[in-house]
Amino acid sequence: MTIQASSPYALGLEKNAANFASLSPLPFLEWAAQAAPDHPSLIHGERHYTWAQTYARCRRLASALSRRGIGPGQTVAVMLSNTPEMYECHFGIPMTGAVLNCINTRLDAASVAFILDHGEASLVLTDREFAPTMAVALAMAARKPVVVDVDDSEFRGEGQRLGSLDYEALLAEGDPAFGWSLPADEWDPIALNYTSGTTGDPKGVVFHHRGAYIAALGNNVVWGMPRHPVYLWTLPMFHCNGWCFPWALAAVAATSICLRKVDAAVIYDLIRRHRVTHFCGAPIVHNTILNAPAELRHGIEHKVKAFVAGAAPPAATLAAAEAAGIEITHVYGLTEVYGPATVCVKREAWGEVDPAERARLNGRQGIRYPVVEAATVLDPETMEPVPADGETIGEIMFRGNMTMRGYLKNERATREAFAGGWFHSGDLAVLHPDGYMKVRDRSKDIIISGGENISSLEVEDALYHHPAVLAVGVVARPDPKWGETPCAFIELKEGVEVSEEALVAHCRTLLAGFKVPRTFVFGPLPKTSTGKIQKFVLRDRAKSASAIE
Amino acid sequence: MTIQASSPYALGLEKNAANFASLSPLPFLEWAAQAAPDHPSLIHGERHYTWAQTYARCRRLASALSRRGIGPGQTVAVMLSNTPEMYECHFGIPMTGAVLNCINTRLDAASVAFILDHGEASLVLTDREFAPTMAVALAMAARKPVVVDVDDSEFRGEGQRLGSLDYEALLAEGDPAFGWSLPADEWDPIALNYTSGTTGDPKGVVFHHRGAYIAALGNNVVWGMPRHPVYLWTLPMFHCNGWCFPWALAAVAATSICLRKVDAAVIYDLIRRHRVTHFCGAPIVHNTILNAPAELRHGIEHKVKAFVAGAAPPAATLAAAEAAGIEITHVYGLTEVYGPATVCVKREAWGEVDPAERARLNGRQGIRYPVVEAATVLDPETMEPVPADGETIGEIMFRGNMTMRGYLKNERATREAFAGGWFHSGDLAVLHPDGYMKVRDRSKDIIISGGENISSLEVEDALYHHPAVLAVGVVARPDPKWGETPCAFIELKEGVEVSEEALVAHCRTLLAGFKVPRTFVFGPLPKTSTGKIQKFVLRDRAKSASAIE
Repeated sequence: MTIQASSPYALGLEKNAANFASLSPLPFLEWAAQAAPDHPSLIHGERHYTWAQTYARCRRLASALSRRGIGPGQTVAVMLSNTPEMYECHFGIPMTGAVLNCINTRLDAASVAFILDHGEASLVLTDREFAPTMAVALAMAARKPVVVDVDDSEFRGEGQRLGSLDYEALLAEGDPAFGWSLPADEWDPIALNYTSGTTGDPKGVVFHHRGAYIAALGNNVVWGMPRHPVYLWTLPMFHCNGWCFPWALAAVAATSICLRKVDAAVIYDLIRRHRVTHFCGAPIVHNTILNAPAELRHGIEHKVKAFVAGAAPPAATLAAAEAAGIEITHVYGLTEVYGPATVCVKREAWGEVDPAERARLNGRQGIRYPVVEAATVLDPETMEPVPADGETIGEIMFRGNMTMRGYLKNERATREAFAGGWFHSGDLAVLHPDGYMKVRDRSKDIIISGGENISSLEVEDALYHHPAVLAVGVVARPDPKWGETPCAFIELKEGVEVSEEALVAHCRTLLAGFKVPRTFVFGPLPKTSTGKIQKFVLRDRAKSASAIE
Repeated sequence: MTIQASSPYALGLEKNAANFASLSPLPFLEWAAQAAPDHPSLIHGERHYTWAQTYARCRRLASALSRRGIGPGQTVAVMLSNTPEMYECHFGIPMTGAVLNCINTRLDAASVAFILDHGEASLVLTDREFAPTMAVALAMAARKPVVVDVDDSEFRGEGQRLGSLDYEALLAEGDPAFGWSLPADEWDPIALNYTSGTTGDPKGVVFHHRGAYIAALGNNVVWGMPRHPVYLWTLPMFHCNGWCFPWALAAVAATSICLRKVDAAVIYDLIRRHRVTHFCGAPIVHNTILNAPAELRHGIEHKVKAFVAGAAPPAATLAAAEAAGIEITHVYGLTEVYGPATVCVKREAWGEVDPAERARLNGRQGIRYPVVEAATVLDPETMEPVPADGETIGEIMFRGNMTMRGYLKNERATREAFAGGWFHSGDLAVLHPDGYMKVRDRSKDIIISGGENISSLEVEDALYHHPAVLAVGVVARPDPKWGETPCAFIELKEGVEVSEEALVAHCRTLLAGFKVPRTFVFGPLPKTSTGKIQKFVLRDRAKSASAIE
């Protein structure tokens, strides 16, 4: 429905420099420097920066990169830890018009080389810790980008230098009063994130300035973030741009507490010392924190809020957080929708149910962010919504301004992802009667045993309820009789032992017989850098594992 | 700077239904109904609505209006108090694609008739309280819109019905599951607000969906609004769409406490009964609340946050609020920038100064909202920023996505307002060394006495420090010797008396001699419905007032 020519609004009142600008998160940084120039922006060990300093450093970075010819539509790749430099890249690189490509720091050299070539990186910033991988990747890559080393004061290892100059020298080349400008078009790219992809080459998800702006404000509004929160960087900034929090935090002039490594003792120390108010992480991060010895928490009296995402949190994790006084909000999303795009909004009535039931309710993927125009469970065949019966399985799909532009140089994958005018998440879910979505499984994570569908998540959830279990991954194991049977890979808590028989007995109290794993394998689980258990590795290992009986 | 053709981002990755939608605040309502269907949305006397009900009622309204032919680019005018119906109009009318035109309920019939004709209203919703004015206006207007009466349960007066049907009957015609859609273009108009204009015909400020979305989220982020705040409607919703709060409140599923009339006893009762957390108002509203007898506050222990805007708050008001435990934030803006567009962000160091100095610091207009791309003080001749010396006077100007489209059918005024690519506020201000703006006066409010500029605001501020003064307006009075002299119109607190001589003596302790008013007039001040003192009326009266001596 468009406006008729006869309408008084049909003519005139067009866009001009006074009333239209490209939406972008970049002005949030200038705002923070104006609103709170002396407030701490970043704290990293002994290094402390104020917002005035961070703004000046970002402008130096943008200025230096511009002088070296970096500009609109070029890619700058970074392989960095959660450091002030990494934060600065989230502003300084897009200020030149270039695209920030954060590389997962745990990737192998071949994958990094693929990304450098596919993303056409003109310049690479790399932390000394990752020099061994980056050195090989640079040798393998066809492109030869300019290499800048980041020599982090908090890095305690060896790590050679690979480049011709280091980050502080680059900054010294730049002007702290650099006159950056907004992108010519808010649809212009701001970031490129390769999805870890369990098969085939990684796909490069392109974010635009408009979407980054919206995702940042969406996080602030969904979390009800006050001004000047203290945010602990337990979530890697390379993962989906730290779910867009570097941009969100500038809009509320937050203090970022940087962190190179997830370690419970260090985390509790930082929470206590800096009175951390907010942090994010995958369930594995929360488990690490919650399973730490209670004495580490000593002296922490203030309220801490946490987002959990990246995998469905086991009910046991949610219940443990509640007991520890951490106020957890479960959010859900994917790189393709700028990170979290749904939230399990707590209903008042849930305060009255028992903790286990509340954990079940809070463990759902919930409803769309207010700034996501649509998110629901559709039948991927008919593209019709599934009934809200808690049983009919469909696929979670998104539509609106927090969906990526598409996959870089991959028309086929982009077309498939957007088939029918919706972004297909690949996550299978049901819609509960209250309108909340609940992921049942990724399509490939369903185990089909004797014709019955078994949700690997449900089996994992049951195992997480056993007190000895730290982490678990359940996958299908090929079986001549049943087709497939569930195979459980289990990482136990330190110093604890448990028998297969005990776990089977435990599962029988919670699961139908055919869902109880036939195979148990004990030992450390293979995980991605973001804490996701690598199921494709487990599926491979399951083939050679031997079943009980 | 645009992206080169050789960039990997130059091709493909275009907008589609999955990754692009018109920005609009309308999806916030659907979100609130999904996130908190049973949570109270609106409370008005004995009437209570939930978010599910409000969403259904808004869809009914949109459906009924659509069936009656209301659609994109048409205007629906409303002359309503702060009622649930008024809130519903903020969603139900734009859901049809039509434009909401809220009329100031204190306007005279001729002005209302002008607005109905100029805005080309197709339909009018009117509250019985305003029937006397509206009846005359409808008779005067050339257009004959459909008239719908709102018969508010909380209205205690007489007030005839003017229309052919009433609001509830209109709603009954509509479908509560109406399939509304987003505007075809986010630049499409959502609201039309006539500025009260002290001279000449009112000008119709056109808001678009994109701007309303941004202003709403901006309010949420600037105020750090948590989910489910309780918002008291002390600010008229007809004023700049209640500064865009009807839309902002949906994005956090707030509870609105409706209010037909600013009355201190009623306000304190509602704050206590509903545990109000947030409210907004002009300084006069705050003064009314703060000057009320202390016993009215009895039993209110919780923290209340307030925005003050609409005029520069006297330092005395800010100090009194601080003493009363109300956490005031000073925001500043105009209808043309969707209401508040700057905020006086509190600096930590201000906690250490004495309350009077803190009130002075907090009384400044401050800095831009993070979602306003630019707001500063420019020399209107050169369009260069004034030095941040706290002395050089320039004009506050805005640029970015929170600026109106322009004035409806008024090309000349639109062109003038946007001259040089900035929106000219008409407010004269200085820039302090910390980057904060401070309004000195509207151009026409400067008093020039013996060649010296006198800020009427400065004189008013001095008078507000006198304990007997409730409200004050200072204007220029023509003087044969000095050209102009300051003339003070003063409304005293109830049951208090004070002499001219005492006020002169008080002013001499705070002001240079030439700034002390030569004329005092006591009595109630003429105010606009939003609490602004009508200086043009005072200027007129000042001509016939007689000076001291």
